[in-house]
Amino acid sequence: MARDDRPIGVFDSGIGGLTVLKEIFRALPGENTIYLGDTARVPYGSKSGETVVRYSLEIAEFLVKQGIKLFVVACNTASAYAIPELKKRLKIPVIGVIEPGAKAAIEATRTKRVGIIGTEGTIKSNSYVNAINALMNNKTENIIEHGEKSLDRYFEIRSGDFVIFTKACPLFVSLAEEGWTSNDIALLTAEHYLRGIKKENPDTLVLGCTHYPVLKDAISKVMGPEIKLIDSAVETVKVIGDILKNRNILRDSTEKPSRKFYVTDSPERFVKVGERFLEQKIEYIEKIVVSC
Amino acid sequence: MARDDRPIGVFDSGIGGLTVLKEIFRALPGENTIYLGDTARVPYGSKSGETVVRYSLEIAEFLVKQGIKLFVVACNTASAYAIPELKKRLKIPVIGVIEPGAKAAIEATRTKRVGIIGTEGTIKSNSYVNAINALMNNKTENIIEHGEKSLDRYFEIRSGDFVIFTKACPLFVSLAEEGWTSNDIALLTAEHYLRGIKKENPDTLVLGCTHYPVLKDAISKVMGPEIKLIDSAVETVKVIGDILKNRNILRDSTEKPSRKFYVTDSPERFVKVGERFLEQKIEYIEKIVVSC
Repeated sequence: MARDDRPIGVFDSGIGGLTVLKEIFRALPGENTIYLGDTARVPYGSKSGETVVRYSLEIAEFLVKQGIKLFVVACNTASAYAIPELKKRLKIPVIGVIEPGAKAAIEATRTKRVGIIGTEGTIKSNSYVNAINALMNNKTENIIEHGEKSLDRYFEIRSGDFVIFTKACPLFVSLAEEGWTSNDIALLTAEHYLRGIKKENPDTLVLGCTHYPVLKDAISKVMGPEIKLIDSAVETVKVIGDILKNRNILRDSTEKPSRKFYVTDSPERFVKVGERFLEQKIEYIEKIVVSC
Repeated sequence: MARDDRPIGVFDSGIGGLTVLKEIFRALPGENTIYLGDTARVPYGSKSGETVVRYSLEIAEFLVKQGIKLFVVACNTASAYAIPELKKRLKIPVIGVIEPGAKAAIEATRTKRVGIIGTEGTIKSNSYVNAINALMNNKTENIIEHGEKSLDRYFEIRSGDFVIFTKACPLFVSLAEEGWTSNDIALLTAEHYLRGIKKENPDTLVLGCTHYPVLKDAISKVMGPEIKLIDSAVETVKVIGDILKNRNILRDSTEKPSRKFYVTDSPERFVKVGERFLEQKIEYIEKIVVSC
């Protein structure tokens, strides 16, 4: 078997993508990795598609120059907006988190009533619904808007025999970054955001933002223990493993892998929050400037 | 009296600085204005000083090219980090929001026990304390850290006969942007953040972030009706008026002023939230790219 030492490039707007990186460490422990968090411009979730595409292309250019063998977009908003453009421009495989999450939701649901939560950008792009449609060969027939105020607003989307409920939960990212993951504010915020979807009785809920697994406990408490929560990190890394194997580009070594981190703002805060996320030390980190 | 048609340039990371702009509309209604919200890179509060200085210089360069007569930094984080560098580089007057806020706090307090709340960047920079020290000719003698976890952490700073309590409240910006300004989550978050400072019994609290006046009701409910809240917008615009008068560069016209807006991300969301903030229509808005 060929041995390919080139690193896997993992990109996120900030720390959320570390949930994907951690799963790479677990499932593909021999691989060299480079993680890039665009912390000078985080968050992406409230920004426009055009801006998110521009940022993603700048990051991709930097990581490709580092000689990566695979580009992982470990950010739902960037996956929602930038994957087609990235695939067009890059010569290496590009993996987003949305298709693996959509696939897992299809496999998990029994009732075909699926909830999807994410940032404003991810929900607005409808990319999870489009991914489910593509995989099921369905077409969206009907979109109903529920709730008058932005707080209560969620969408009911009918595609084939699927009924999909989508809801933007912008405050979840701030809560995760602040480390307020299971206190009363996290719980109350989850109750506010999720009560509309909960009433609709889905059996599966996609955590459509790489930050959200950190709030799993609060979300699960509100939705009830019987609901299946889909964490795209695990699903995405399964796809990455398959691609490395199929293309015969696994590192396949027992030598200690190199695990580098780059950020676009000062590393101090990233290291503090990141080591808590990863439950391990960050040994190599460097600040870079990607724009200009 | 000379008539100076050049606009006032007002800069913020996003929409928070609109509280200052609104006060300019009220107190200096004849002035032409240009507002720039760096919405592609908002928020600044959690970013490093170095990055915030770089962003501020880029924005200043753009606004100076538009021929402004005065540069207002309507963002506490940018004021905290970038004012010295901006003053060094720009030939026009540069006004931040911190000195006016500090001055107002000194005038308002009777007990000389003052609370200051702001973003992580503003609190970390200690710039309000430094401004109070400069105005009072005091020196910081002692800093005591209270609270073990980040949620509970606040600082007690003794300078001369002042005792100043500072506390970072990062989630307040997300709440203001989401429009959750007086619901139970806003109130509970305010209770969490403010309970340490409240126990210390200050008589004055500086809202050290241009977003925070939007949460005034929730903050006041937690702190009690007797506490004086300092809104830097009002104080800053008093200083702006004095400078225009003293330099004899008021517009001094009854012709309808021009009020332009620039943003670095798509205008759609800015217009929606901005018109709510300003309580008036935004007629001219354009998206620009400042970096590169």
